[in-house]
Amino acid sequence: MARSVAYVILMKQLVRAVRPLVLLQTYSCKYIPHRQVFRNFCSSGVRSTGSSTNWGSNKRKSYSHPPRSEFVMSDPEIEALLAPLRASVKEQGDLVRKLKSEKAPDVDVQKAVAELKHRKQALEAKELALSPKDDFDRAKLEDLLIQKFFFDQSFSIYGGVNGLYDFGPMGCAVKANLIQLWRNFFVLEEQMLEVDCSVLTPETVLKASGHVERFQDHMVKDLKSGACFRADHLVEGFFEKVLSDKKMAAEKKEEIRQIMPKIEAMTKEELGVLIRKYEMKSPVTGNDVSDPMEFNLMFGTSIGPTGQMKGFLRPETAQGIFVNFKRLLQFNQGKLPFAAAQIGNAFRNEISPRSGLLRVREFTMAEIEHFCDPELKSTHPKFDTVADLELTLYTACNQMDGKAPERKKIGDAVKEKLISNETLGYFIGRIYLFMIKSGIDPKRLRFRQHMSNEMAHYAKDCWDGECKTSYGWIECVGCADRSCYDLTQHTKGTGVKLVAERKLSEAKTIDVTECVPNMKLMGKAFKRDAKDVSSHLTGLSTEDIDSLEKSLKENGEASIDVNGKPFTVKSDMLEIKRYPKTVHVEEIMPSVIEPSFGIGRVMYSIFEHNFKIREGDEQRTYLSLPAPIAPYKCSVLPLSSKAELQHFVKQLSMALTKCDISHKVDDSSGSIGRRYARTDQIAIPYGITVDFDTLKSTPPSATLRDRNSMKQIRAPIEELPEIVRDLSNGRRTWHDVYNNYPVFEQQEN
Amino acid sequence: MARSVAYVILMKQLVRAVRPLVLLQTYSCKYIPHRQVFRNFCSSGVRSTGSSTNWGSNKRKSYSHPPRSEFVMSDPEIEALLAPLRASVKEQGDLVRKLKSEKAPDVDVQKAVAELKHRKQALEAKELALSPKDDFDRAKLEDLLIQKFFFDQSFSIYGGVNGLYDFGPMGCAVKANLIQLWRNFFVLEEQMLEVDCSVLTPETVLKASGHVERFQDHMVKDLKSGACFRADHLVEGFFEKVLSDKKMAAEKKEEIRQIMPKIEAMTKEELGVLIRKYEMKSPVTGNDVSDPMEFNLMFGTSIGPTGQMKGFLRPETAQGIFVNFKRLLQFNQGKLPFAAAQIGNAFRNEISPRSGLLRVREFTMAEIEHFCDPELKSTHPKFDTVADLELTLYTACNQMDGKAPERKKIGDAVKEKLISNETLGYFIGRIYLFMIKSGIDPKRLRFRQHMSNEMAHYAKDCWDGECKTSYGWIECVGCADRSCYDLTQHTKGTGVKLVAERKLSEAKTIDVTECVPNMKLMGKAFKRDAKDVSSHLTGLSTEDIDSLEKSLKENGEASIDVNGKPFTVKSDMLEIKRYPKTVHVEEIMPSVIEPSFGIGRVMYSIFEHNFKIREGDEQRTYLSLPAPIAPYKCSVLPLSSKAELQHFVKQLSMALTKCDISHKVDDSSGSIGRRYARTDQIAIPYGITVDFDTLKSTPPSATLRDRNSMKQIRAPIEELPEIVRDLSNGRRTWHDVYNNYPVFEQQEN
Repeated sequence: MARSVAYVILMKQLVRAVRPLVLLQTYSCKYIPHRQVFRNFCSSGVRSTGSSTNWGSNKRKSYSHPPRSEFVMSDPEIEALLAPLRASVKEQGDLVRKLKSEKAPDVDVQKAVAELKHRKQALEAKELALSPKDDFDRAKLEDLLIQKFFFDQSFSIYGGVNGLYDFGPMGCAVKANLIQLWRNFFVLEEQMLEVDCSVLTPETVLKASGHVERFQDHMVKDLKSGACFRADHLVEGFFEKVLSDKKMAAEKKEEIRQIMPKIEAMTKEELGVLIRKYEMKSPVTGNDVSDPMEFNLMFGTSIGPTGQMKGFLRPETAQGIFVNFKRLLQFNQGKLPFAAAQIGNAFRNEISPRSGLLRVREFTMAEIEHFCDPELKSTHPKFDTVADLELTLYTACNQMDGKAPERKKIGDAVKEKLISNETLGYFIGRIYLFMIKSGIDPKRLRFRQHMSNEMAHYAKDCWDGECKTSYGWIECVGCADRSCYDLTQHTKGTGVKLVAERKLSEAKTIDVTECVPNMKLMGKAFKRDAKDVSSHLTGLSTEDIDSLEKSLKENGEASIDVNGKPFTVKSDMLEIKRYPKTVHVEEIMPSVIEPSFGIGRVMYSIFEHNFKIREGDEQRTYLSLPAPIAPYKCSVLPLSSKAELQHFVKQLSMALTKCDISHKVDDSSGSIGRRYARTDQIAIPYGITVDFDTLKSTPPSATLRDRNSMKQIRAPIEELPEIVRDLSNGRRTWHDVYNNYPVFEQQEN
Repeated sequence: MARSVAYVILMKQLVRAVRPLVLLQTYSCKYIPHRQVFRNFCSSGVRSTGSSTNWGSNKRKSYSHPPRSEFVMSDPEIEALLAPLRASVKEQGDLVRKLKSEKAPDVDVQKAVAELKHRKQALEAKELALSPKDDFDRAKLEDLLIQKFFFDQSFSIYGGVNGLYDFGPMGCAVKANLIQLWRNFFVLEEQMLEVDCSVLTPETVLKASGHVERFQDHMVKDLKSGACFRADHLVEGFFEKVLSDKKMAAEKKEEIRQIMPKIEAMTKEELGVLIRKYEMKSPVTGNDVSDPMEFNLMFGTSIGPTGQMKGFLRPETAQGIFVNFKRLLQFNQGKLPFAAAQIGNAFRNEISPRSGLLRVREFTMAEIEHFCDPELKSTHPKFDTVADLELTLYTACNQMDGKAPERKKIGDAVKEKLISNETLGYFIGRIYLFMIKSGIDPKRLRFRQHMSNEMAHYAKDCWDGECKTSYGWIECVGCADRSCYDLTQHTKGTGVKLVAERKLSEAKTIDVTECVPNMKLMGKAFKRDAKDVSSHLTGLSTEDIDSLEKSLKENGEASIDVNGKPFTVKSDMLEIKRYPKTVHVEEIMPSVIEPSFGIGRVMYSIFEHNFKIREGDEQRTYLSLPAPIAPYKCSVLPLSSKAELQHFVKQLSMALTKCDISHKVDDSSGSIGRRYARTDQIAIPYGITVDFDTLKSTPPSATLRDRNSMKQIRAPIEELPEIVRDLSNGRRTWHDVYNNYPVFEQQEN
């Protein structure tokens, strides 16, 4: 049980992050109040130990094993063992559904959901215990990644900073290649509008998006050591310990079981009361802790010298797209649908970052916002290109029913309304194809649907692309139907209508209610604020105008609030006009489908999925990265340091450079086998070796080795750069090459 | 005169920014104290008006014109007019040299330098007045860039933020292409080690680099409006006004002339005294101003929830490379030389950002740190590949002599010791080649050497790649020989020796002086600081150990300073060992050559240099960007909206996508000429038009148009994607294509 709790906590921590706005780990039945949605994805620092997973340190924990739901079709024996647990989850899931449909009191639903959670945990723990142990050794992968400087902790010579990583030459190349692949796959192929927006973001923008108010967490501090913990997790952890204490009175336990489901939704004051009542201490030192305080996860700063403009480092790249919606729509000649994309860094001040690249304070995201007419998102013109793709889907329903994920065609999932529309289905398909192309193992990739109580209230449907790693199932990509939430928020925040026009099939007459400010009087009354006030007034909805008019009629004046400042408007300052108007278009607020990639998480999953050990040699680890992602495409190795060979090495290097093929010359003195092993470790897919036959052959030839199969062929030096280029960009396969050139046999030793 | 002063101020503002550590606009003769170096490149906000250049606003100022030193060989008539001014500069330059060589009192040198400045200004003003007016219209370029959303102010719907820009689809593509070109040209071709380091940087790192103490400025605030101004510029501006006042007494003017040269080096207290004595007010409102206060140009933030770790957004990317030096050296198998590179964002909280992309608060840099043995930097193995390149060099000597820049081969410049070594010369050559390849007009590119008093005291030689734009000569790239300054600073800051090993030609015996701490006693005395103290002690130089030993002998104890904290070390806490040792290698602190690119500035210069207007049609503006930089490589235009043509458009689009060629289909209803004009505006170099002959020809063919010449050929549709690919990556020229396919004649209208 302890293990399953640990696993669930780990999942909680990991499942957030790519796009927390839509993540929630509760099974409560009603729409979650916005504030709570934000609080829940801030589930970072439970039981902080003050130290984070430190790449390169020797203190390696034993890692909890993820459930084996990667295998959709299970061993019948195992299934038999799991059956009672699955039934138990289903029973409780059904109860939750029933209570919801009956609109039972909140407290009852919460209690049922808490029990559902416990049963799900038990099922997952059993799945885990029964799953075959794979032989992946994370310590070995970490050794390789650190030693070859794929990445490592930032500022190590200054003691390092948790949650910050530097990518070395190999990691940087993988990252740049992954981004380029993403750009070609999405931006180029789908003709998306890529933008590159500011990281520094003024407070007003993030107030409108909801981040200032809600992207925060309740935190307590160890009063002596200063270490910080999430307040709700501190309380939960304390209670879980009490519940597992066999000596504890049943009465006490029941009291705690009553409280537990409510913790997530508690205010900081309520959490404070619990902490004091039960005398909870720091789980690390046993010291007293402070009262809970609010902690916003955004990094704050001040823009400009006056200190008057508060700003933050963006917590996601998406907002930059939303605030540019009008320009982008105009760029697209006013037409829907279109997709905008952005690749860039985002920042979150995690309370206790951990798990290497998976939970960091600075990370690269690649986000797409596909804007479309809400009435047309049920179809997508290219849907047929993905309809027959069969993927592992873990539907909300299956999760409630205690069932395993299923293999299903996207087309069928949309038909069966499991995926809510074709546009969302299309993007899920594209995400799948991209992930596979990048080197993700399709067997360790699943799409998990958010349960209705997990989603932010504005989201219609949301699927996470999760990769199975030694840390469990990690959310690497989110794909959400966000409806019109974001554009609505920024329209409210600015008074600028972020809408598109839809052509009407026939013209219609509408009643217009318009507020026309008298600029002269406004100017006199409000001076430099007059423009803001008047643009606020002209932007009012019909309902707002009606109530303004009412107030003006009753009192001769009305109070309005513009950008947080109050103003008193008098009757003579404006005129309210009402008239019929014939229109050929109507304004619509576009719907947004948002695929959002956490580049660091995708990268880390690729590393795990491609970490291999040569049969029979535990020491020969390597990375089988696909060529487009590999840091170098090719190595050039002279068999010996003899000067005659140097000429060919230089010639090859120049020819490869001309073809823009990144490559590495290794003319060090090690044996050829040793040098191959070294190039395998940095994932170089192809290796050219210049040997003594090169000198003898006409035209001069060299050998070409395939990393994965270790097979070699011999080809003329002149042809090799093009062969490598074609292999790298997928225009030729190794199989083709192998069949068309003489095979070269050699022992690698 | 007023104009020339404005120009110099403008230059002052612009010349900094890419790598301020090495920029200084003073001609004083001695090495500048470090503090002053930092202060000088903070020359941002003189005479702030509170408003910045606002792209897209209609309020466009008349822009001062840059000097015409772009023309190395001048018109003899113009030269005759300039001759007396040149002589006057030279006379004063010689005086400065003489005073320096005689080690004259500082105050005399400063006075002479101030006069030299005035004479240089007069020369530049005259050059400017005599230079032929070019017909570049910045307003038109701005219209194009905004309208086609190359870039625009960030968060405009929220009122915008000065100094922050968003790149739209076109600008983002140009930027991504420029970065990819840079990566291929430098990282790939030179096999550099690219890294990608954290933006968030803890204070300790930037303390060691000098940024915390010195990357700051003295600022005063308008007490009513809150607007901020640089204190020294406020004082200078006030004095310049007094000096130009004809009614002012000569005596008063002389007093001010005595003070002016000293302003730059003044403390905030001294500046405060002047402001009060002369009753200086805000130049914008006439309000009183505050006392000068220090303002650090870095954006500060707090890392982690405890608030205990102060951090900044990096003001440059270089420090990330320096702190990873050991890992990079290890990755390079311990061998010198090697170069590391980084492309990424940096942040500076400018007091008053302006000039569009040229002075912003968030910008992308591409920096290279070439680490080499200081004794070997005089040669570079690939120097011969650039030695014959002839560029425009503006040597320090010519600047002092009032001479114009000269055309010179890099090989000759190194031979004549104008450029201090081959390695620096090699990089200047590579920078030149990259800039030309990116679309910079070679006639508007010069390399200006820093004068000895302009350089930071640790720099050996420094050249700025400057592009001529309508804002004047803009520093876009810096290329500095920074000696071993940075590695030394971080070695001091951490106690970690950032050194490399040099093999000795024969083994030698050296005297080792070593400080061996007694960890037990240290631990007792210093507790958790013991490790820091002992690593400080083991890192001491022989000289430091000698003086420590002396102090211990005299007093039985010694005070040392570790990370800003004082400790008292007693004699028994350490042992000082001296012994001879045979060594085969010696430790060296590598020298660093640093080419540093401001990507936004290069981009803006490319836009200006490629902004064209079609002959005879003022309205038809376009951008002649080279294909590798152009946002799309190709357009696909159906001549009419007839359905038969659609099939070919789709076929072409798919084939282009398969070749990774970014392209834009424009099937809108405009005339073909209008659509060509539109594609020209977004710099699409090649356009394929599917017309009615496409339907008739076998195999089906279409036309291909070259943007710059507007010439067209006709080729089979199957061949077109490859033709465009080859044209885009430079494997074929338009000339080749034009000669090998039938020409297609058509009026564009």
